[in-house]
Amino acid sequence: MEITHIEHLGIAVKSIEESLPYYEQVLGLKCYNIEVVEDQKVRTAFFKVGQTKIELLEPTSEESTIAKFIEKKGEGVHHIAFAVPSVADALAEAEEKGVKLIDKAPRAGAEGLDIAFLHPKSTGSVLTELCMPGQGK
Amino acid sequence: MEITHIEHLGIAVKSIEESLPYYEQVLGLKCYNIEVVEDQKVRTAFFKVGQTKIELLEPTSEESTIAKFIEKKGEGVHHIAFAVPSVADALAEAEEKGVKLIDKAPRAGAEGLDIAFLHPKSTGSVLTELCMPGQGK
Repeated sequence: MEITHIEHLGIAVKSIEESLPYYEQVLGLKCYNIEVVEDQKVRTAFFKVGQTKIELLEPTSEESTIAKFIEKKGEGVHHIAFAVPSVADALAEAEEKGVKLIDKAPRAGAEGLDIAFLHPKSTGSVLTELCMPGQGK
Repeated sequence: MEITHIEHLGIAVKSIEESLPYYEQVLGLKCYNIEVVEDQKVRTAFFKVGQTKIELLEPTSEESTIAKFIEKKGEGVHHIAFAVPSVADALAEAEEKGVKLIDKAPRAGAEGLDIAFLHPKSTGSVLTELCMPGQGK
């Protein structure tokens, strides 16, 4: 698999509003986008740090996977997203090498990306996303 | 605080040997260094992904904080390390802004870095390291 960089880190938070002062006033990062991803039942806030974005994930419903994650593990790092030239090719390669997939094909994510998740059972418990700019970009 | 990039992500693993095939053969990353950090009772393995390193952390003792982390939360992302021009200045600024510190002053970490940790109570439960090249570099 050809990974160019870490595209973003997803961090589960109870409340974006309550988290912003730490990211903006302490770390000095600038939130440049807040977006709702309806099908994942999350509100996301983005910051850029060098090549990588930090994506805060706030659940918009108790049924959100992020709400369940926070309930089970507390707030914290939820996933790592690697940028690849082709998500479909990377998925095919991972599956061929025995990795369990959450997504069998790329789907639309936040910020116009095409994304797919590998299953944490195959990745040392690190929920791992592969992503690339979507066709609309 | 002035952060230039994410210097590394620390990932707690039970065994570097068992984790290597995923990072090397599936993700296609290359382990370029394995190092023991005696005072933290860990063995570390490093991979480069764009600007950022992935640092696998394997406990060398049951008393290691990494062993306790794995016991409590399982394997997974342990900390985020931000590169700053001056760890001492960043610590002073964070403390002035009410952030609880684990390290009041920079200390030596793996890969010749000067490092210091902020307390997860002040960082939305994300254990956060600040780092810069050490004086020996």
